[in-house]
Amino acid sequence: MTSALLTDRYELTMLDAGLRDGTALRRSVFEVFTRRLPAGRRYGIVAGTGRFLEQLSRFRFGDDELAWLAEADVVGSETLDWLADYRFTGDIQGYREGEVFFPNSPLLVVESSFAEAVLLETLALSVFNYDSAVASAAARMVSAADGRPLAEMGSRRTGEWSAVAAARAAFIAGFGATSNMEAGRLWGVPTMGTAAHAFTLLHDSEEDAFRSQVDALGPGTTLLIDTYDIPKAVETAVRVAGPELGSVRIDSGDLPQLVAEVRAQLDSLGATGTRITVTNDLDEFTIAALRAAPVDSYGVGTSVVTGSGHPAASMVFKLVAHHDADGRWVSVGKKSAEKATVGGRKFPVRARRGGIASAEIVRVGSQEVGASERTLLVPLVTGGEIDPRWLGPEGVLAARSHREAAVGELPPAAFSLGRGEAIIPTRYEVV
Amino acid sequence: MTSALLTDRYELTMLDAGLRDGTALRRSVFEVFTRRLPAGRRYGIVAGTGRFLEQLSRFRFGDDELAWLAEADVVGSETLDWLADYRFTGDIQGYREGEVFFPNSPLLVVESSFAEAVLLETLALSVFNYDSAVASAAARMVSAADGRPLAEMGSRRTGEWSAVAAARAAFIAGFGATSNMEAGRLWGVPTMGTAAHAFTLLHDSEEDAFRSQVDALGPGTTLLIDTYDIPKAVETAVRVAGPELGSVRIDSGDLPQLVAEVRAQLDSLGATGTRITVTNDLDEFTIAALRAAPVDSYGVGTSVVTGSGHPAASMVFKLVAHHDADGRWVSVGKKSAEKATVGGRKFPVRARRGGIASAEIVRVGSQEVGASERTLLVPLVTGGEIDPRWLGPEGVLAARSHREAAVGELPPAAFSLGRGEAIIPTRYEVV
Repeated sequence: MTSALLTDRYELTMLDAGLRDGTALRRSVFEVFTRRLPAGRRYGIVAGTGRFLEQLSRFRFGDDELAWLAEADVVGSETLDWLADYRFTGDIQGYREGEVFFPNSPLLVVESSFAEAVLLETLALSVFNYDSAVASAAARMVSAADGRPLAEMGSRRTGEWSAVAAARAAFIAGFGATSNMEAGRLWGVPTMGTAAHAFTLLHDSEEDAFRSQVDALGPGTTLLIDTYDIPKAVETAVRVAGPELGSVRIDSGDLPQLVAEVRAQLDSLGATGTRITVTNDLDEFTIAALRAAPVDSYGVGTSVVTGSGHPAASMVFKLVAHHDADGRWVSVGKKSAEKATVGGRKFPVRARRGGIASAEIVRVGSQEVGASERTLLVPLVTGGEIDPRWLGPEGVLAARSHREAAVGELPPAAFSLGRGEAIIPTRYEVV
Repeated sequence: MTSALLTDRYELTMLDAGLRDGTALRRSVFEVFTRRLPAGRRYGIVAGTGRFLEQLSRFRFGDDELAWLAEADVVGSETLDWLADYRFTGDIQGYREGEVFFPNSPLLVVESSFAEAVLLETLALSVFNYDSAVASAAARMVSAADGRPLAEMGSRRTGEWSAVAAARAAFIAGFGATSNMEAGRLWGVPTMGTAAHAFTLLHDSEEDAFRSQVDALGPGTTLLIDTYDIPKAVETAVRVAGPELGSVRIDSGDLPQLVAEVRAQLDSLGATGTRITVTNDLDEFTIAALRAAPVDSYGVGTSVVTGSGHPAASMVFKLVAHHDADGRWVSVGKKSAEKATVGGRKFPVRARRGGIASAEIVRVGSQEVGASERTLLVPLVTGGEIDPRWLGPEGVLAARSHREAAVGELPPAAFSLGRGEAIIPTRYEVV
């Protein structure tokens, strides 16, 4: 399916007017950044890069799209001809997927004709705003879980294709698995899940249901124990599966107390190796509150796929420089009060002290990288060619690993769940 | 693209175990409902029905999906054979798209074998939870706007395909247009939009940009006037387009005051017919706060596509009845404290007094419909055949029109933006 109509109409009308007066062919630089983190957050995690690049490779106006644009009278016939040949031929640099970001970090830098770049605004922002919102929330859950594994189970709480993106973003942020099958197939995210309450209810008894599941999936499976009475279910589970029962799952109730009781009962039945997983409307705060409880793993739904209160990452896509009529670069920025933009092409680095991040430095007009600094932009697309390192399941694994390294550079206070400002300042250095 | 892997893994493992022990072939009834409305909301709007039905028609396991499931060792080979032939052959009834709903309204009733229905849980919930969250928020914005037109412009603030769904859901809820092109093509939603700040910044002067836009789109276009200085932009806009200028758009600043100043300036320049549209981070509350200002239309972004603080509608998909081994219906429900479910097949009606909704009555075991009552379930799928009335752009128009009628039945207090309970009670009548 083409991604070419996942755009706002104004991108096409700007293109149309700009092709008529020639300005659309001016070489231009657009940047993606956010002006602020969600209230209280210390850092964000970039996600969506690999998805954006795959959508970019499908950004083509075929006969159907052109016929519809003509019928809807959106643009003139010369613009339709131009769209028929559309291929992005410019350069895109960006933060690596999985990188940490802060207010005004230039996450994506798109350089091409205005015409080629302006069409990508909505697609780029849809992908980065959603995926980064999920990854940023997920990273907080990962640090709250303090080493215990997390699974993403929120597909049902977001649009059906956003669900696939959310599973991928949460995995990049450090979750270990997802319930979402398409994320397994497309992006190589490990999948998990065994049974819902419906499976127990379908059977004539809980014991029948457990036996059926153990027959099909083996004693290492996870049995759901809160359909009826939890202590009875634990007894039945261990009787049916034996003490080698893999896990039990609790999806309701007062978790800290329940988990302790279930642990004690499992141990008393000899099922000392049986793990406990909990899945009841968790977020980073309730995960942290379970640190003292004998929980072995968490399943997180709504809160991770909706960005834990912040379902969009507030990123914008702004023109920062363009050629004038004589081919000289002009820096530009919107002047209206609360949305002012710093013009000019940016070269961001992360300054570090003793290996710990100390500042986000955004240089304008200089590509200098100091000895203790780390450069943040990598080439994603060069002359229209997408770098294959960032694509597919391999790109996801690379992003997950980069996230671990980048988060590892943050000062410990970054992981506080209390409200605070960005953990390091963003400073402009304009040469 | 198939929708068959837009599922959670546990649906497939339940299927696998249930096919082995035969229970998966038991006739079953699943229902979709929500236990509560978002805090403070008085009603919700069902959206997603037409999208769900279209996804259902694409729910097929092809060679690629089966090969991946085999490789990932999710289910056994007999289950793979069963999946290869999967077609939903059962019945689905539901609230009409655009209908008003309340806590425990049975929005969708799926009757088929357990096997056929259980696979649809995630897909159904993803679609209804997201689309209904958007429509429910959008309906509040529509009532806050008090007759002034609204456009949905939030594509960039949600996943790229959720954006298409959001445009459709907002239109059903009463918005007049969207910026999203794919929603125009797929669902017939009217599209709108003219230019961003980038277009002004690209040109050597604001006047050049306005002239280019008016040349391309005619004087009836909407000019964006807050890139630099608003009073200067208004003056330039009217000089370039003439007093027949269609609209000006303001995307920043203190709107009530700015709008009044711009209106006065437009009038003083003779552009008394030029409309003012505002688009600066609006939600139902800021829209209501602009009632006294001379605004002609609103563009809403983030808040509508993220459900204005409630990005998922909390709907669940629950087994409520199934055949036992002898083919007799058994009502079932989860017993654990806070998630108890009323078992048995439901027949909901809306009771009315003087044409105004007074209660949601959910009958269990009786299909009675009283004289002042309106039945709420309509057939969506019968014996596997999807009713075409609910599909495509026609389905969207029918839903929009039904929403208007259903919202029109609500008591006036339903439209208060203050926090409150569901505007009418939901009552069970168990025969």
